[in-house]
Amino acid sequence: MSIDRRHPREIRADIRNGKLTGVTAGLGQNYVQANLAVLPKAQAYDFLLFCQRNPRPCPLIEVCDAGSAEPAGVAAGADLRTDVAKFRIYQHGQQIAEVADVRPYWREDLVAFLLGCSFTFEWALLDAGVRLWHVEHGKGVAMWRTSIACRPAGVFHGPVVVSMRPIRAADVPKAVTTSARFPGAHGAPIHIGDPAAIGIADITRPDYGDAQEFAPGDVPVFWACGVTPQAVALASKTPFMITHSPGHMFITDLPNAALAAL
Amino acid sequence: MSIDRRHPREIRADIRNGKLTGVTAGLGQNYVQANLAVLPKAQAYDFLLFCQRNPRPCPLIEVCDAGSAEPAGVAAGADLRTDVAKFRIYQHGQQIAEVADVRPYWREDLVAFLLGCSFTFEWALLDAGVRLWHVEHGKGVAMWRTSIACRPAGVFHGPVVVSMRPIRAADVPKAVTTSARFPGAHGAPIHIGDPAAIGIADITRPDYGDAQEFAPGDVPVFWACGVTPQAVALASKTPFMITHSPGHMFITDLPNAALAAL
Repeated sequence: MSIDRRHPREIRADIRNGKLTGVTAGLGQNYVQANLAVLPKAQAYDFLLFCQRNPRPCPLIEVCDAGSAEPAGVAAGADLRTDVAKFRIYQHGQQIAEVADVRPYWREDLVAFLLGCSFTFEWALLDAGVRLWHVEHGKGVAMWRTSIACRPAGVFHGPVVVSMRPIRAADVPKAVTTSARFPGAHGAPIHIGDPAAIGIADITRPDYGDAQEFAPGDVPVFWACGVTPQAVALASKTPFMITHSPGHMFITDLPNAALAAL
Repeated sequence: MSIDRRHPREIRADIRNGKLTGVTAGLGQNYVQANLAVLPKAQAYDFLLFCQRNPRPCPLIEVCDAGSAEPAGVAAGADLRTDVAKFRIYQHGQQIAEVADVRPYWREDLVAFLLGCSFTFEWALLDAGVRLWHVEHGKGVAMWRTSIACRPAGVFHGPVVVSMRPIRAADVPKAVTTSARFPGAHGAPIHIGDPAAIGIADITRPDYGDAQEFAPGDVPVFWACGVTPQAVALASKTPFMITHSPGHMFITDLPNAALAAL
């Protein structure tokens, strides 16, 4: 994986003008990347409350003022309508378009939410010497809907989605303490070991993403996943919603390390 | 200070039936006590967003469903309308009553917010061997409005209010690491040393609470204070608001130690 070491401001400018169109892995080294969810103000209170009640799957790092596309707290001057390479537009839970610029869809009653993503704690795990099979093999993580219910809020309810990484037994404590430093990026694992205990029947067949390979002695470690809030919002059939396309994250000006010290 | 070691459930029952009417310091040993703010749904989104944007002064630990007085996440079965010894009722920023039971004022559009309080990190500091002058002398902490602005949200804006404790120089690092474990109770200090740098002209004259005494070598350490959200809400002249009366906190079923591991 090649690494683009420029400041996120420059990378966002290239995304905005169409020079960069792909996934954001490897871009903005060591800067926080974020999941995007945009909802009408009418659903924003319930969604904000849902995130407050479910901070592990839904770690809010920014909520814009209604109508504003500038995430002033994490990337002053950025424009969320153009500074993500690819967006998905949903109506009543159905995808109606995938576009590189959502300005034609923007409305004054829209509220943009940015949520931390696993890139931040994966960076910390790798830095701490914890090996990640999917990174070494250029794959995605494995994800499942679990039997763990989110605490509902208004119209939003559904299961916690988890991502799973095989971790060497001796490294499991380090994986916990390292990721726990980043509550803004899902924090500590929510489950370690026995997949069946959280409703996962077959650890070799993920609901989303790629199957992982276990070396002898590896333990399955489960983190709450940012797919949760999007899945919950879509299941609620909210009349309108914008998200980033999978892998095409918003890159903030916040260094990953800073997220541990907010 | 005498300590009531019963489970919070029993203490709340005594508060509800009028047997306990005083301040809650010393009640529910080692359980999280919380600030209460109740606002109409029309202001609740802005308030929730204000708390999300200002987590140090406004550490949300529970938000009830609109109309519900049961803080299901932290004290299942409790009733916030009766389980606080003394409440204040405000209209347009003016106090209109102080009562022991807010059922006559309750409405279906009210949203109750519980915010963590300094008792939790003070318990942790004392447990860690950090001496607190005001505890040893039966006084309140010293509090000031600062020149640090909260990040505004909708109708809510205003300065961060801080509490200040003199800490022995050698204990300052321990005070930081210990309180940082409790982001749900204001977390780490937001300022250490020079009071003038945050707009405090005279460290001997607090805006609220009691003046503190410094021993030679003590450093003034400032934490974000739970007075902030109430002050901000009152300054916004929200049409209606209920709070606990100072010192008469809501006692949750959550052990203080659990707040470091959520």
